[in-house]
Amino acid sequence: MRELQFIQQVLVEMAELVRQRYGERQTMDISSKTEAADLLTATDLEVQRRVHRAIQAAFPGDRLVAEEEGLSTFPDDHNIRCWVLDPIDGTHNFVKGLLPAFGVSLGFAKGGSVQAGGIAFPVLQKAFLAARGQGTTLNGDRIHVSDVSDIRAAKVEVDFSRKVYRDPMLRLADQVLREAGQVRCHGSAVAGICAVASADADGYIAPGLSPWDFAAGVVIVEEAGGTVTRLDGSPLQMFDGQKGLLISNGVLHETLHAMLML
Amino acid sequence: MRELQFIQQVLVEMAELVRQRYGERQTMDISSKTEAADLLTATDLEVQRRVHRAIQAAFPGDRLVAEEEGLSTFPDDHNIRCWVLDPIDGTHNFVKGLLPAFGVSLGFAKGGSVQAGGIAFPVLQKAFLAARGQGTTLNGDRIHVSDVSDIRAAKVEVDFSRKVYRDPMLRLADQVLREAGQVRCHGSAVAGICAVASADADGYIAPGLSPWDFAAGVVIVEEAGGTVTRLDGSPLQMFDGQKGLLISNGVLHETLHAMLML
Repeated sequence: MRELQFIQQVLVEMAELVRQRYGERQTMDISSKTEAADLLTATDLEVQRRVHRAIQAAFPGDRLVAEEEGLSTFPDDHNIRCWVLDPIDGTHNFVKGLLPAFGVSLGFAKGGSVQAGGIAFPVLQKAFLAARGQGTTLNGDRIHVSDVSDIRAAKVEVDFSRKVYRDPMLRLADQVLREAGQVRCHGSAVAGICAVASADADGYIAPGLSPWDFAAGVVIVEEAGGTVTRLDGSPLQMFDGQKGLLISNGVLHETLHAMLML
Repeated sequence: MRELQFIQQVLVEMAELVRQRYGERQTMDISSKTEAADLLTATDLEVQRRVHRAIQAAFPGDRLVAEEEGLSTFPDDHNIRCWVLDPIDGTHNFVKGLLPAFGVSLGFAKGGSVQAGGIAFPVLQKAFLAARGQGTTLNGDRIHVSDVSDIRAAKVEVDFSRKVYRDPMLRLADQVLREAGQVRCHGSAVAGICAVASADADGYIAPGLSPWDFAAGVVIVEEAGGTVTRLDGSPLQMFDGQKGLLISNGVLHETLHAMLML
């Protein structure tokens, strides 16, 4: 698929760019988080502009939905050819983070569903790629979700990142937080989603995501054998304006869904 | 200090060893978490045995307290020269982890207090070192805790890792979880502690730690300007058998302590 090849190539270039910028952050006075935040903002915009130009050149007429610079409105016609970009997901971890849990995420949707997607973790040097019907790869190797079916043995990633969703999330996930074998919160949607895709986690619960946070991730986790729904178990419609997402290895999906306090 | 130089040298060697073993894990069938768990166990023991031998050679007569192989009992005399080792902290992240949030932790205590400590993150290639009165370094550069004093702007790391502490932790940290600007859970004590030391987090709350989980971390975060107490605010006595720990950048300590539901 031409779109997948495009995603792969763009992510190689953008990962290199972000890795360089992050390297500059490392040489800053480590106490200057303001300076790091400015660098993040600049890098975020630089990635988005470059990817936008690349899409315009390779696929003239295609729509781009992305977080910055007025591109965040959804298309009226959900069936158009549409690219969905998060230039840097996990921005707080770029600015303040012992662990480089941030990634560049680019998905391609057509007919209202994500057809191809890629997520690159620039510092971890890991790239996830997937195309509908063709499986998911991590640095070129096929990957599959876990087969963990017992919540007591499961590792669940939860999204606590935005404070406005904190109260609802603590209520929603209360039972999961108490009963899951392991709980993690990395503060990055792409980290949570790719953890499920690569069998490093078994479920991911997020109360407040936008399409750029998950577009590429949807096809990456589904093609690795996982399941993606809204929190109420209904199918995902990318531009329906809902914010919650439940992702799992599939076998754990109904268990997780039943445990959510909706 | 001779002990600090010893710690530094041992950690360079052990980080290299663990990095190699983790590399072997990467070449395994990614779905074989059992195999990865066996590799972890073997690596854990290998690190402990090597460090034990190195201590016996360099400091004959010194006591080692560590997690494995019957070394986990505390000394009756808290004032003796005592090394405290966690060969791999964050073991779950070694076995299943998109992010390599695990580290080797070695502290040296005398007179009941930690005098020197080092924590190496083998895959992240970061080494934290500190000696009492001499400050803390990260890869050789002096580091300091943050100056964030407002809980709404603070990033707080919480420890949800062991299920037996999950219910108490959710109650204990309820207000912090709701009010902190950012929340993270990396499932590794050394990651949480070093995040505070390096100003990447502003507080860390853990309900169930043993001395090997925090010994090196105590001097690392204190020498970076941070504060370490038990959850009730009382001073830390390493071998008192208590399990809870509250770590902060100092300015946020009383706020965090007051928010805990003890």
